[in-house]
Amino acid sequence: MSSTWTLTIILLVSSLLTLLPIVTGDENHHLHPLDPLTPSEINQVQTIIKQTFNTTSKDNITFHYVGLDDPDKPTLLSWLSNNPSNTTLPPRRAFVIVRLDRKSHELIVDLSSNSIVSKNVHEGHGYPLFNLEEQKLARMLPLTYEPFIESINKRGLNVSEVDCYGLTEGWYGEENSRRALKFTCFYMNGTTNFFMRPLEGITLVVDVDELKIVEYHDRVRVPLPKAEGTEYRWSLLNQPLGDPHLNHFSFDQPEGSGVKIEGHVVRWANWEFHLGFDARAGPVISLASIYDREQGKYRAVMHRGSISELFVPYMDETEEWYYKTVFDVGEYGAGQSASSLAPSADCPPNAVFFEGYFAGRDGKPVHVPNAICIFEHQSGNILWRHTEAELPETVTESRAEVSLVVRTVMTVGNYDYIFDWEFKPSGSIKIGVGLTGILGVKGAEYTNTDQIKGDVHGVLLADNVLGINHDHFFVFYLDLDIDGESNSFVKNNLVTKRVTNDNSPRKSYWTVESQTAKTESDARVKLGLEPSELVVVNPNKKTKPGNNHGYRIIPGSLSSISLLSEDDYPQIRGAFSRYNVWVTPYDKSEKWAAGQYVDHSRGDDTLAVWSHRNREIEKKDIVLWYTLGFHHVPCQEDFPVMPTLSGGFELRPTNFFERNPVLKVNPPTTM
Amino acid sequence: MSSTWTLTIILLVSSLLTLLPIVTGDENHHLHPLDPLTPSEINQVQTIIKQTFNTTSKDNITFHYVGLDDPDKPTLLSWLSNNPSNTTLPPRRAFVIVRLDRKSHELIVDLSSNSIVSKNVHEGHGYPLFNLEEQKLARMLPLTYEPFIESINKRGLNVSEVDCYGLTEGWYGEENSRRALKFTCFYMNGTTNFFMRPLEGITLVVDVDELKIVEYHDRVRVPLPKAEGTEYRWSLLNQPLGDPHLNHFSFDQPEGSGVKIEGHVVRWANWEFHLGFDARAGPVISLASIYDREQGKYRAVMHRGSISELFVPYMDETEEWYYKTVFDVGEYGAGQSASSLAPSADCPPNAVFFEGYFAGRDGKPVHVPNAICIFEHQSGNILWRHTEAELPETVTESRAEVSLVVRTVMTVGNYDYIFDWEFKPSGSIKIGVGLTGILGVKGAEYTNTDQIKGDVHGVLLADNVLGINHDHFFVFYLDLDIDGESNSFVKNNLVTKRVTNDNSPRKSYWTVESQTAKTESDARVKLGLEPSELVVVNPNKKTKPGNNHGYRIIPGSLSSISLLSEDDYPQIRGAFSRYNVWVTPYDKSEKWAAGQYVDHSRGDDTLAVWSHRNREIEKKDIVLWYTLGFHHVPCQEDFPVMPTLSGGFELRPTNFFERNPVLKVNPPTTM
Repeated sequence: MSSTWTLTIILLVSSLLTLLPIVTGDENHHLHPLDPLTPSEINQVQTIIKQTFNTTSKDNITFHYVGLDDPDKPTLLSWLSNNPSNTTLPPRRAFVIVRLDRKSHELIVDLSSNSIVSKNVHEGHGYPLFNLEEQKLARMLPLTYEPFIESINKRGLNVSEVDCYGLTEGWYGEENSRRALKFTCFYMNGTTNFFMRPLEGITLVVDVDELKIVEYHDRVRVPLPKAEGTEYRWSLLNQPLGDPHLNHFSFDQPEGSGVKIEGHVVRWANWEFHLGFDARAGPVISLASIYDREQGKYRAVMHRGSISELFVPYMDETEEWYYKTVFDVGEYGAGQSASSLAPSADCPPNAVFFEGYFAGRDGKPVHVPNAICIFEHQSGNILWRHTEAELPETVTESRAEVSLVVRTVMTVGNYDYIFDWEFKPSGSIKIGVGLTGILGVKGAEYTNTDQIKGDVHGVLLADNVLGINHDHFFVFYLDLDIDGESNSFVKNNLVTKRVTNDNSPRKSYWTVESQTAKTESDARVKLGLEPSELVVVNPNKKTKPGNNHGYRIIPGSLSSISLLSEDDYPQIRGAFSRYNVWVTPYDKSEKWAAGQYVDHSRGDDTLAVWSHRNREIEKKDIVLWYTLGFHHVPCQEDFPVMPTLSGGFELRPTNFFERNPVLKVNPPTTM
Repeated sequence: MSSTWTLTIILLVSSLLTLLPIVTGDENHHLHPLDPLTPSEINQVQTIIKQTFNTTSKDNITFHYVGLDDPDKPTLLSWLSNNPSNTTLPPRRAFVIVRLDRKSHELIVDLSSNSIVSKNVHEGHGYPLFNLEEQKLARMLPLTYEPFIESINKRGLNVSEVDCYGLTEGWYGEENSRRALKFTCFYMNGTTNFFMRPLEGITLVVDVDELKIVEYHDRVRVPLPKAEGTEYRWSLLNQPLGDPHLNHFSFDQPEGSGVKIEGHVVRWANWEFHLGFDARAGPVISLASIYDREQGKYRAVMHRGSISELFVPYMDETEEWYYKTVFDVGEYGAGQSASSLAPSADCPPNAVFFEGYFAGRDGKPVHVPNAICIFEHQSGNILWRHTEAELPETVTESRAEVSLVVRTVMTVGNYDYIFDWEFKPSGSIKIGVGLTGILGVKGAEYTNTDQIKGDVHGVLLADNVLGINHDHFFVFYLDLDIDGESNSFVKNNLVTKRVTNDNSPRKSYWTVESQTAKTESDARVKLGLEPSELVVVNPNKKTKPGNNHGYRIIPGSLSSISLLSEDDYPQIRGAFSRYNVWVTPYDKSEKWAAGQYVDHSRGDDTLAVWSHRNREIEKKDIVLWYTLGFHHVPCQEDFPVMPTLSGGFELRPTNFFERNPVLKVNPPTTM
């Protein structure tokens, strides 16, 4: 399948020799079936939906998800194989979730026919994404709520300095649930960093459908942490500044940029891929393929890759904290939470930026400027080298590495998450995450650890500030299609053997025993327990010497798994965090590891549930799920804003190419 | 201890505002007691030693190690605390190993008094480093050895196209051993990459003291792999070149370089350290300390850090391969094997270079131009950031990261190892290794995997070329002195707890149970088995809130341990590879994890043996040993030269600072 459409793309490339700037053309003239919905398409969807419901209802409709309904995989691949002679796109459709009369309605809207082609009311557990506006409306409610104002006054504080932030409630076995957020409030008064000043002991619950406070608790009084030392804004920091001083760089590419962008298709060095943007997933990398000079064509590597979920459970079972077990992607949306990237700070000066759009509460488009950046990166690494000192004259050949990085930042309340998709000319894709931003902290009476008796679930960071222990589990959806759709997951186990040959002085060695996963249960892996190389292979494609084409996973930092008990409610909902690696057969409906409706979910639509069907996965179109996990014991360096902690993993070609694909890469011209 | 000497250094810094170029001054006017031996000091050592032995002997003396004999730690720290008022250096001494009459002589030479102050003949097992010249002389021997010439002629080949390479023999339980190398030979004829063309089946053993062939085996005949496709030299590669094409960067620092170098002392941002160079260890980082603005002084982090050993066992027990279990640092020397770094390829254009010197076979200095490079690196990462979207006006603060990298490349025969010490302004030290160069391959009859029956110990990479399975275990010596010498090693184990509070809807959480290692056995760690943070703390120094100052280890990629049986000879010699982490009490004599004399060693002087004394390590001057391990199953992308595979680990401050040490770092001026 891939071999035909890749040829087409070469034709496209050769007809496109323009440099950098983003070629958008007519906003609705799509170049590619995976292009995200444009602002006018989002408007069109809104209009169609509002027309469908009756007059009374239409003002009460709230939008919770509007995104491209990807064409089915066969349709998409067939379009690709016929493009550009067949420039007609498959029908443009949107998948929409709206709330009306306390129900979640799922709609598929056909944009060409201006009609709703499918309608369904979700009857299962859980609720869709919270939209930004309802969060904002909800967090204003406490500020005019009498009992809350009274609590603030009693503490001698000023309600005009209060800011509240709503976390999802989770589910703890209750029969009936409500679409609600639980609010904790914070105090500014002299700092931007209100998250470091919790008004500990006060909790409000807001019914978000009704936008009403439905519960109020002022349970305990705890000293308010000081504002002093919490500021992070350059313009507001106290002297002296600039410590340590870093001399930054300016850089230039004498040969120009190597990045070519046409609509949402990105081409760089030997790579090409489609870059989408989704309210829930944020950036979506599709149809990533790499040009193979020996085969004279682009070869498929990854059909689709994106974050699927991010689960952040806190480790404090007490009344104000037990519920803090958020699912940032499924409850808040990585795209909705995308931060506009700051040029020359979030991304280097040579970065180019993509805009992001999603639907707001009213269904109208919301614009995220600079939602994604792409930059070529002279990584400082050596791509390959060798010094041959054994010859009469020493030979040194060395190549500096340049890679291409696709970056987004997702800010959910206090935390900032950096996501990097790095494409290397050697064929590797490195997925990196960085954790920065502000810790979730708890107000406490302590000013020194020697006052602490028992387990306080965290670390004392400053007077009255406890950084609470927690985890971050990122699960990535990686629909690898190594040279086509029929793939298998292979564990190459390294097994110690005793030497049986009496003539050998050696007593042992290890060898590779390959185990192809037949069904899903064979493919659940906890990293670090067994020495094994994990490879996705195409069992139908072999190199000349006869090795199966493959890509393997190289784990990096942050490969922890969940330590919660299996029967604990948050763990049931975030069950993907039990393993680092899962493999499932491709199913268009299985994209979100914690389920389609995550808020108040009950764990009945998760990766673990699907995987326990134990379907066959050998020689199938399979999806690899990788969980990157981090147990965070806070430390004082994380106060008042955290230096980035980075981790990630690498997908690396393994017998995918006949030989080193960067053997003939050009040395830098400055050599 | 550190608090006094750090003050001194501030004075030095403030008196030194010169920019980049390396200030060397008079070659022998040392600025620092840890400065490596200069060429004239190496010459002086040679003269003193030659004078000591009688006339007949002196021509037979060969030199195997000449290096600085570091002053004892108390002497050094006392000098530092008195500098610069006391500019007199502690006595300059060299530690030397020479061979004479088939014995290894250990000498300590005092350079100020021009005398040998200590003399010892090594009576134990094992031999010192092979010097480069004897390796070169030895590998010429086969080319004029009649039986070998006959073997080559019989194969229809031309001996003038042959190159041989000697690997150490190891030890396999034999009573008597010899100082010998085992040679495998290779065929050039149309390629620079002779390592890809083994003359499989022929082995020669050279007694290196006598420079005589003492064994010759022509056991089997195996097809010679083709030269075609093995070339990697840019000037000799076939068209088309430049694929994939990478557009490189030129860069500039408008504010100038931030690196300040005085002799061997490097200062950058908030870091300072001494950078030495040793024939065996290669680069040595000493006295790394970081400026703490709040305390107004430099604070000690690492007294000494260097590679200690690199163990590379192959996994093939057959006659020509079983012995291939080399110790690259202890047998070949990381400094002796340092490759001259290629500007703009091995290191970015803004790098500055250090020279390296070591003693040759005759005791005279050998020069390695560009042995080490140092460069500031705009890493592309975000140092920290936060977007505060909850305020009326969105606030974004973001800082681009710049770090300082110290890089060397060690080329031992076919393999090239890249070592990076990266200093981050946030206080982290990242130690990175990269593996590139040429695989160790075996000639074979196969041209397709379907011809292979049974275990061939590797992967068929091309016609007649098997890449043999092997490991790389790098062990780093890290004498951390966190805020002084008295340190402890703490495992912060994350332990799942059941919730016992009936009022909590949660069923579980994890908490930290700290375990301070009392003795060495408590501090042997296999990574990945237990969730734990590993921290070196100063138990006598606390932050204001009462947390112990510490640095923790964050493992990254490549954290495998050895799979060889414990009773296998190479494993006994390379026993450090059994654990990722070891901690020992500081002992000046314990620097080399596989022992002082590694060639033909028998495992009686290794990190494992020392550790099994089970000494006390709590509140002591302790040394952390970190093993970075990589099981290498070759793949076709590694042919004919390997794209770099990278791994490493991070030492990160944890309650070392009162707060984020980069809060007040300057934003890039281009913002």
